[in-house]
Amino acid sequence: MSTIRNIAVFTSGGDSPGMNAAIRAVVRTGLHYDLNVFGIQRGYDGMVNGDIFPMDAKSVANIIQRGGTILKTARSKDFMMPEGRERAYKQLKKLDIDGLVAIGGDGTFTGAAKFIEEHDIPVMGLPGTIDNDLAGTDFTIGYDTAINTVISAVDKIRDTAESHDRLFIIEVMGRDSGLIALRSGIGTGAEAILIPESSTDSKALLEKLAHGRKNKSSKIVLVAEGDEEGGAFTIAELVKKEFPNYDTRVSILGHIQRGGSPTCMDRVLASRLGVAAVEALLAGRKGEMAGVINGDVAFTPFNKAIKHIDSLTPSLLKIVDILS
Amino acid sequence: MSTIRNIAVFTSGGDSPGMNAAIRAVVRTGLHYDLNVFGIQRGYDGMVNGDIFPMDAKSVANIIQRGGTILKTARSKDFMMPEGRERAYKQLKKLDIDGLVAIGGDGTFTGAAKFIEEHDIPVMGLPGTIDNDLAGTDFTIGYDTAINTVISAVDKIRDTAESHDRLFIIEVMGRDSGLIALRSGIGTGAEAILIPESSTDSKALLEKLAHGRKNKSSKIVLVAEGDEEGGAFTIAELVKKEFPNYDTRVSILGHIQRGGSPTCMDRVLASRLGVAAVEALLAGRKGEMAGVINGDVAFTPFNKAIKHIDSLTPSLLKIVDILS
Amino acid sequence: MSTIRNIAVFTSGGDSPGMNAAIRAVVRTGLHYDLNVFGIQRGYDGMVNGDIFPMDAKSVANIIQRGGTILKTARSKDFMMPEGRERAYKQLKKLDIDGLVAIGGDGTFTGAAKFIEEHDIPVMGLPGTIDNDLAGTDFTIGYDTAINTVISAVDKIRDTAESHDRLFIIEVMGRDSGLIALRSGIGTGAEAILIPESSTDSKALLEKLAHGRKNKSSKIVLVAEGDEEGGAFTIAELVKKEFPNYDTRVSILGHIQRGGSPTCMDRVLASRLGVAAVEALLAGRKGEMAGVINGDVAFTPFNKAIKHIDSLTPSLLKIVDILS
Amino acid sequence: MSTIRNIAVFTSGGDSPGMNAAIRAVVRTGLHYDLNVFGIQRGYDGMVNGDIFPMDAKSVANIIQRGGTILKTARSKDFMMPEGRERAYKQLKKLDIDGLVAIGGDGTFTGAAKFIEEHDIPVMGLPGTIDNDLAGTDFTIGYDTAINTVISAVDKIRDTAESHDRLFIIEVMGRDSGLIALRSGIGTGAEAILIPESSTDSKALLEKLAHGRKNKSSKIVLVAEGDEEGGAFTIAELVKKEFPNYDTRVSILGHIQRGGSPTCMDRVLASRLGVAAVEALLAGRKGEMAGVINGDVAFTPFNKAIKHIDSLTPSLLKIVDILS
Repeated sequence: MSTIRNIAVFTSGGDSPGMNAAIRAVVRTGLHYDLNVFGIQRGYDGMVNGDIFPMDAKSVANIIQRGGTILKTARSKDFMMPEGRERAYKQLKKLDIDGLVAIGGDGTFTGAAKFIEEHDIPVMGLPGTIDNDLAGTDFTIGYDTAINTVISAVDKIRDTAESHDRLFIIEVMGRDSGLIALRSGIGTGAEAILIPESSTDSKALLEKLAHGRKNKSSKIVLVAEGDEEGGAFTIAELVKKEFPNYDTRVSILGHIQRGGSPTCMDRVLASRLGVAAVEALLAGRKGEMAGVINGDVAFTPFNKAIKHIDSLTPSLLKIVDILS
Repeated sequence: MSTIRNIAVFTSGGDSPGMNAAIRAVVRTGLHYDLNVFGIQRGYDGMVNGDIFPMDAKSVANIIQRGGTILKTARSKDFMMPEGRERAYKQLKKLDIDGLVAIGGDGTFTGAAKFIEEHDIPVMGLPGTIDNDLAGTDFTIGYDTAINTVISAVDKIRDTAESHDRLFIIEVMGRDSGLIALRSGIGTGAEAILIPESSTDSKALLEKLAHGRKNKSSKIVLVAEGDEEGGAFTIAELVKKEFPNYDTRVSILGHIQRGGSPTCMDRVLASRLGVAAVEALLAGRKGEMAGVINGDVAFTPFNKAIKHIDSLTPSLLKIVDILS
Repeated sequence: MSTIRNIAVFTSGGDSPGMNAAIRAVVRTGLHYDLNVFGIQRGYDGMVNGDIFPMDAKSVANIIQRGGTILKTARSKDFMMPEGRERAYKQLKKLDIDGLVAIGGDGTFTGAAKFIEEHDIPVMGLPGTIDNDLAGTDFTIGYDTAINTVISAVDKIRDTAESHDRLFIIEVMGRDSGLIALRSGIGTGAEAILIPESSTDSKALLEKLAHGRKNKSSKIVLVAEGDEEGGAFTIAELVKKEFPNYDTRVSILGHIQRGGSPTCMDRVLASRLGVAAVEALLAGRKGEMAGVINGDVAFTPFNKAIKHIDSLTPSLLKIVDILS
Repeated sequence: MSTIRNIAVFTSGGDSPGMNAAIRAVVRTGLHYDLNVFGIQRGYDGMVNGDIFPMDAKSVANIIQRGGTILKTARSKDFMMPEGRERAYKQLKKLDIDGLVAIGGDGTFTGAAKFIEEHDIPVMGLPGTIDNDLAGTDFTIGYDTAINTVISAVDKIRDTAESHDRLFIIEVMGRDSGLIALRSGIGTGAEAILIPESSTDSKALLEKLAHGRKNKSSKIVLVAEGDEEGGAFTIAELVKKEFPNYDTRVSILGHIQRGGSPTCMDRVLASRLGVAAVEALLAGRKGEMAGVINGDVAFTPFNKAIKHIDSLTPSLLKIVDILS
């Protein structure tokens, strides 16, 4: 078993709500087990450039409720090259850092896997992304907050839709995954949901709109940005052509979906996984992402913690059909 | 003095949060003074078509906190023609309606003024619009909610901006007025605010961005949709050209700004003005908008309750300059 | 297999956020399968008294986002007696109702079990309670909203605690279960959590407070109302005696925890279970509660869907210890 | 005219949302005019003890949206004595501080007035209190946030009240003033409001409850904590005695009313007044509170910026009567 003394934590890839709660958990768990804990600024980029600083309990006081990441995040071209990783490794060695916790998505883990391969330093990962599309965990840190942000926005838009008898085509995040659209669509009682996982039959949508309940004048359609038939504007064009007398509007929710104070579930998930990742390092594990599967902490090798389609998707889609 | 017995209330133009609180106040005040109260669906359109129904205290129970308008709102081509107004008048006469309360913007009041002129029926108006650009009231019903919706969205975007050191160009509503951008810009500590009222010197913006505080990496710029130099995308183009190494993003807040549960101030304003409008009808007034000026209820003739530039604008703009 | 034609839905026991989403799902699923659907007012009380009315898609429009229950809820003394249940049964028979969906807690299901026994009418149950203390489902409808309401309140209180260097003892709901205190305690970074499931060692709490981090002046302690050492005021007395120079305050969150617009997860859970309950009735099931276990819908007989202690509790308590 | 070079800012008395926005405005305005700016920890207490530190633009970055006060606040026994004020003055002189901005309530200003009298140092004040009971400003910093926190809580409680047909007696803050109860009562459609300014006729309340609309089963009564007939529990006793068959409940909102992210209006008010206070110091003013009267900045001598009864109170009370 390894005897880890000094660990460092960083965030990488797109930010997600709950990353700060995860950082806090890693730092406090490290201190709890008498480790020295460092923070790395701006992900792999800061690692390459030595933007690394010691953290204590106070560094993470009063951040559990904040969106974003106090460690910042960035993409690093340098770290994609062996020379960059070499530099990064030397920066860590200067400070005797012998364990890492990486918070991010599958790109983050791919980088970490290479880093372990080349420099044999233990790294554990936490799933920090709003998309919820990683194998190895039922939920990613930030997803629950994102879908609540979406339903709160759609609830507001529905006020206007109802008042004016309008049809709104609303685009939500999810380049490769429709999970944000799916749960927030059910949560807002959307008329239809278009997501990359299902080959969107635009004909089916148009038919549905044609046969919608007569007494329901306002309608909400959610489109994931990654839908293969195009985003909200493309879908709106189709609808306008077929139903010129509908008052059809488009709304792109955009970046509000990444921010905001994390929900309780995201804070708890981040806290649990932060504890688990540090304890895993101490137990000699490496190259794995900590996740929660069926309520329990589970570890998945980085090369399997990749984007996948949630097996619940078909049954959730069916619910949309029944209830809309 | 008129002896009004039966009044009707309707909402017209774009919906705004607090319209339901205003409807509730009109209905309950009418009942308080032993009037019969009717609701008209979808504004002037419903008036022309006779979509008019009696309301009681229960009709408006539990709506004070809801966005949108339970009476719905629409634009009416028919009412723009004398024949349409004639039809509308007949519909009212069928029900012996001898007083109206119109909740909307300056278009609503222009229609009401013509209606009074042609058919001599008393109408009082309430300012229901998120834009806050009407002479005759310090605040319109919905404005306070809209600026709080904006700052809540921008607070979320700032999480991401801070985490990634990004510059966000955020477009908010306000076709003819920058008041939404102005107060929400101060409220979010925006770096700069571009509004129709000030001839936007894009040079000035670029200069400001060039000389921004070094230690402040993330930046927020708010643009009112009505800005004469173009919306957020146009401004973003300018910025990207000048500062290609900035990570510049655009966000259009869109329709979320119209909805949502009204703030306390909007509910109180709507309640006060709803009471005042009915009492004014009973006192024999007509053709005026009820507003609040310097804390007190004030009445302004419809032909003066038009879009104007708030005299506070220059001093608020100066505050943006000092604090950003 | 039964051929069910007419179903009725009701809510019973304490209200919880998401009950309306569940009602909507039951009604729409019933209509989807060409059933007639009725609503029963105020739970078993309305059943006994025949407060039963037909519902259609419009009856449940625009309610998915609302707290409380449009069907109201009440306790019924009559239904506790065989004569009351007899009367209730006759009321149902008058309308040919041959299937029921009951939304509530274990008291609700106990009543339903007796009703089935005596009158052989199929009843399926949905777990509607904020306490999350029912066997047979990982989460109850309303729990997720309640813990988010709690953390939002505690985040606010922490602002004051930090500004004044105060210790706050905050009491949250949970007469028999500490699950609200537990997750919201982790989510707010509470210093300590006192819950019925663990024999609260008040000595341990006092010791913890004595040895708290020096640089952390403000402290939050969460107490479940059902804690066996007494509520927040009792604990505050103990603390004040031991630490007279601490500025110790008490806050009882109270009834705000039951209301509010449901979170996305509660809306999705309610929607899934509402669909499942109706489909289960159609498939000939009865006397069971629909729940979600490890992500999948599962059915548990009413006599096993009782209050229990979540097996996660010890591991969550350990996280509080490590992170506080 | 004085030539001020070094100013310090502090918060004192109870914290209120928007204090951080005010601190930010003071610091940035000071820097804008090339002053050195210091922060004093924990109000007069930190002044006496020399807890004073330099602030720059970064010290106040990203705080405009946060509740509480980063400078903390406390009561100081030392500063009540001439010796304490003498020590405080010496601490300021050590750092050449020649101007102060005090953010707080009337107690804060009384202390400041004495300090000016004895040591002739310019002090300007900002009204930071949720109670809105100071002469010299239409609104205090924090009031708008507090009433929105209250209506959001009462909206949640109403969900439960409606679902169970209950009467809730809800106590809100306001030891000497009913302004929180008054506006949030109108904003939530409360049945009645009991405040210190009106000699509460409990008979009138009971009569009102007796003759309430038959079809309105749930009822909300708001009581200001300073009401001369006692708080919510006392009122509830009266009601229970008279109406034993009502399901009457009590809720004390408590400390959540002081915290939370400030509303847009509170952020704008704090920003305007922060700018105004520093500019006033530079213009040679002292011993005055900056406020906003009828939309414009106004200055009021400390000895007149005392608790008073808002002249709007009677007309707002009348609105409660008409609409409830």
